[in-house]
Amino acid sequence: MAKNLTTRKEDYSKWYNELVVKADLAENSAVRGCMVIKPYGYAIWEKMQAQLDKMFKETGHQNAYFPLFVPKSLFEAEEKNAEGFAKECAIVTHYRLKNDPDNKGKLIVDPEAKLEEELVVRPTSEAIIWNTYKGWIQSYRDLPILVNQWANVVRWEMRTRLFLRTAEFLWQEGHTAHATKAEALAETEQMNDIYAEFAENFMAMPVIKGRKTESERFAGAEETYCIEAMMQDGKALQAGTSHFLGQNFAKAFDVKFATKEGSLDHVWATSWGVSTRLMGALIMTHSDDNGLVLPPNLAPIQVVIVPIYKGEEQLEQISVVANELAKELRGQGISVKYDDRDTQKPGWKFAQYELQGVPVRIAIGPKDLEKGSVELARRDTLSKEFVAQKDVVEKVKGLMIEIQENLHQKALTFRNEYITPVNDFESFKEVLKSKGGFISAHWDGTAETENKIKELTKATIRLIPFDSEKEEGTCVYTGKPSAGRVLFAKAY
Amino acid sequence: MAKNLTTRKEDYSKWYNELVVKADLAENSAVRGCMVIKPYGYAIWEKMQAQLDKMFKETGHQNAYFPLFVPKSLFEAEEKNAEGFAKECAIVTHYRLKNDPDNKGKLIVDPEAKLEEELVVRPTSEAIIWNTYKGWIQSYRDLPILVNQWANVVRWEMRTRLFLRTAEFLWQEGHTAHATKAEALAETEQMNDIYAEFAENFMAMPVIKGRKTESERFAGAEETYCIEAMMQDGKALQAGTSHFLGQNFAKAFDVKFATKEGSLDHVWATSWGVSTRLMGALIMTHSDDNGLVLPPNLAPIQVVIVPIYKGEEQLEQISVVANELAKELRGQGISVKYDDRDTQKPGWKFAQYELQGVPVRIAIGPKDLEKGSVELARRDTLSKEFVAQKDVVEKVKGLMIEIQENLHQKALTFRNEYITPVNDFESFKEVLKSKGGFISAHWDGTAETENKIKELTKATIRLIPFDSEKEEGTCVYTGKPSAGRVLFAKAY
Repeated sequence: MAKNLTTRKEDYSKWYNELVVKADLAENSAVRGCMVIKPYGYAIWEKMQAQLDKMFKETGHQNAYFPLFVPKSLFEAEEKNAEGFAKECAIVTHYRLKNDPDNKGKLIVDPEAKLEEELVVRPTSEAIIWNTYKGWIQSYRDLPILVNQWANVVRWEMRTRLFLRTAEFLWQEGHTAHATKAEALAETEQMNDIYAEFAENFMAMPVIKGRKTESERFAGAEETYCIEAMMQDGKALQAGTSHFLGQNFAKAFDVKFATKEGSLDHVWATSWGVSTRLMGALIMTHSDDNGLVLPPNLAPIQVVIVPIYKGEEQLEQISVVANELAKELRGQGISVKYDDRDTQKPGWKFAQYELQGVPVRIAIGPKDLEKGSVELARRDTLSKEFVAQKDVVEKVKGLMIEIQENLHQKALTFRNEYITPVNDFESFKEVLKSKGGFISAHWDGTAETENKIKELTKATIRLIPFDSEKEEGTCVYTGKPSAGRVLFAKAY
Repeated sequence: MAKNLTTRKEDYSKWYNELVVKADLAENSAVRGCMVIKPYGYAIWEKMQAQLDKMFKETGHQNAYFPLFVPKSLFEAEEKNAEGFAKECAIVTHYRLKNDPDNKGKLIVDPEAKLEEELVVRPTSEAIIWNTYKGWIQSYRDLPILVNQWANVVRWEMRTRLFLRTAEFLWQEGHTAHATKAEALAETEQMNDIYAEFAENFMAMPVIKGRKTESERFAGAEETYCIEAMMQDGKALQAGTSHFLGQNFAKAFDVKFATKEGSLDHVWATSWGVSTRLMGALIMTHSDDNGLVLPPNLAPIQVVIVPIYKGEEQLEQISVVANELAKELRGQGISVKYDDRDTQKPGWKFAQYELQGVPVRIAIGPKDLEKGSVELARRDTLSKEFVAQKDVVEKVKGLMIEIQENLHQKALTFRNEYITPVNDFESFKEVLKSKGGFISAHWDGTAETENKIKELTKATIRLIPFDSEKEEGTCVYTGKPSAGRVLFAKAY
C-alpha cells in the first residue's frame, strides 16, 4: 500500500524521518534540535516508562527529583565528567527580560539581571545529585541509596534527529550510593540486566550485553556496561548504559561515610539511564515500508476495530457487535479502539492504523454480521483471515503473545545474521562496506588501534560482550595478541 | 511527643519549613530557589500524578511533550502573557563552556558560543504549544485538541519556600483547542471541577470554586477559574487554576481553522494546571505539631507494622504474624511496610512514622502473640486500641475510609469557621487581624478598590465564588453598589 513513504531501500534515513512524522510520533519544533513528542508517540513512551518504573521499584529503587540547573562550580567539580559535557551544554546567564526601548512590543535580556554564577542546564545529574547526597550520607546505615529520576536533560548536539539525537530529551537516570565496591558493581550489572530484559521482552528487541572500552565510557565512569542493538540498516544503536563510577564523584564532592567498623570511607557510586532514544530503536527494529510496527507489549492501541458500513442503520448493527467485542477484549486487559468516526472512510482508517503500527485490526461489515465473523488483520505479517465472532477474543489473546514473539524472533534472526566474524583487516573493511552490522574481530586492547580503526572505517568498538568465549587471536589491525573478540560497528 | 518540631502556635511558618525537611519530603538545593524532592515526598507527588492523570484521560485528554525552551520571538508574541512572565524567567544565552585559560580545572562560558536568539526556560508553555498547534490545525476535523503535559517549569521567584513557591517546580499543564467559545468555556469549567474533585476526594482538602477578578487572572487569559483552600494559619492558598484564553493565543500565533460551513475562524483555547504546590497545601491542611498527617488516598505507606521484640527468636515469631497480616492487607490493595530493621528501636520508628504521617501504625509484641491481638494506632486522632488479629484486615479497610472522611470533615469544619461575612471596613480589618481566613464582603467591582484594599490590608480578592447567592449590597470600602459578595484573604 502506498503511503508516500520513502522505502527503506531507497533511503533508510529518509524513511525513518518520514515515518516518525507521518505516524504522528514526533516532529521538530521551533527550537533548534528540540522535538515535540506528539500524543501517539508519547503514549508509547508512557508504556515504556510504566514498565521500567515497575522494574526499578521491584528492585528497591525509589523516585526523586533534583534541580534542572547545575551551578557551574558544581558542574566542574568532577573533572572528567565536566570535560565530557562542557562542549555541549545550554547555559543560563540571566533571569529577566525587559521591554526593548527601541522596539515596542519586543523584549530584550535585562543586562542588570545577570546571574552571579552561571547555571548549566543538566546534561546529566551526577554533580547536583552527589552534592545533595553529601547531606544524606553519614553512616553505613544511610546506605545504600537507590534513587531514580525521570527528567528532561539538554545536550547541545549539532546534528540532531528525532528521538535518536535531540538537544533536549527525556530519560530516567538512576543514581545509587553504596558502602562497597562489590555492591556497586553488582548494582551496575543488575541495572544493565534490567535494561536487557526490558528490551527483549517489551521492545522485542534483541540486545547484546557487554562493557565499553575506555574511550567509549561515560565521562567520569570507571566502567560502562551497555546493551547494543542492531538496526535494519546494519548500524548499531546503544540502547542503555549502566555506569560503575567508583569513588570519583564521592571524592569530587567529599562524600564519606562511617563504616560499621568505625573508619571513614568514600562512597561507591553507579548511574544508569535510558532515554527517548529507545523510541528510535523501537521504530527502526520492527517497522517496514508500510509504516510503524509495534510489539503488543508497548502498543498504546493493541486492537483497532473498524466498521464497514453504508448508512446509519448498518453502523448501528455493526456497533452492537463491535462494542460487545471491545468490551470483552478490554476485560482481558487488551487495549481496544473502536473507530466509528464518520469523518473518515474505512480505507483511510486502514492505512492510518497500518502506518501507526496497531498490531491487530478487526474489520466488521454487513457480510460479517450475516456470517457471524470478522476480518482480522495482523500488522506484523500483513496477513488477513476471517474469524468467527465467538472465537475472536481467544484468537486475539493468543495473537498478543504470538506477534510479540514473532517480532522478537524476526529481529533476532536478522541481528544474528549481522554478526560477522572476520580475521583480517581487508575483510573487515569489505564486510563493513557491503553489509554492515556487527563485526566480531580481535583487537589488541589499545586505544591507539581503536582510534586508528575508527579513523579508517568509521566503525567503533560497540562493546566487549560479556558472553564472548575466550579465544586467543591476533588483532585484526596490528596483528598483536588479543584475548578475545570484540564487536565493531558503525553506530547511531 | 517531642520531635523538636516548632509548634504551629509558636511559628507557623517555621513549623512548616521544619516539617517539610524533617519528614523527608524536600530540601533546598545548591541552586537558589530550586528544591530537591526527596523519595518520600516524591512518592506522594506520584500518587497525586497517577490520580490526576487518570482523571484527565477519563475525560479524553492525552499526554504529549513540548520543548523546555521558548525562543524569545515566540515568547513575546502574546503580549500580555509575555509581560506577565518576562520579569521572572531564566534565559539561556550560550551553548558551551570552555576551559578557563587563567584558572586550571575551571570552566568559563565560551563567548564564541552565543546563541543567535536567546531561549527562555518555559515559565508556562502557551507560546511554544500554540506555535506548534498552528501546524496541527487546519479544519474543524482537527478539533478539539485535548492535550496535557507533565513537566518542569521555571519562574525566577525572589522569595521561595519549599513546594509553595520555588524557582523550578513540577506541574501539569493542559492546553486545549476548540472550535467554539462555548466548548472552550465548558472545558475550562470541567477541568476546574476535576481539580476540585481531586482536592476534596483525594487530598481531603475542601476548596471553593470560583473565578478570579481581572487583576488576578493568568496573563493572557480572558477568564481564570480557580479552587481556593484555607490553611490552618488563616491564609488562603490557590490550589489550581483553569483558564479560558479566548482567541488570544490563536491570534498571536495565527491559528485558524476551516469551519464546517467553510469559513475561517480563530481557534478557542484553554489552559489549566496544578503543581507541586499542592504538596504544600496538603501538608498545611492536615498536619499537626507531631508532624505530617496524610489522607490514606495519597499516603505512600498506608499501614506500617512495627515489631516489638527482644532477641532473634521473638522477632521470628512476630514476623510470621506480621508478614501474614501484611500479605492479607496488600491483597486488599492496601500499601503496607513491615519495618523489621534492627538498626533502629521501636520508639524511634514510632516517632518517625508519626512524623511522616503514616495513617495507621500496627505494633506487635510478645504479649500480642499470646493474646492474638495487635496494637493499632491512628495518626489522625493519635488514638490507640487493641484489635484481635483476625479482625485487623476488616478494621484497617474501614479505617482507610474513616480516616479519609475524618480528615476531610475536620478540614471542612475549620474552613467553614474561617469564612466571616463582614459589612464594614473596620470589621474587615479587625477580622483580618484577629482571625484571618476568608472574609466575605461586598465589593464595587473596580480594580481601583481591589488595589486599595490590598494596599491597606494585604488581603486580595481570592475569588468570586460560583455558588454565592445574589445579594444586593454596598462595597465594604467605597459604599458603592455591589451585586454579590466575594472572598478576600491574605494568601500564599
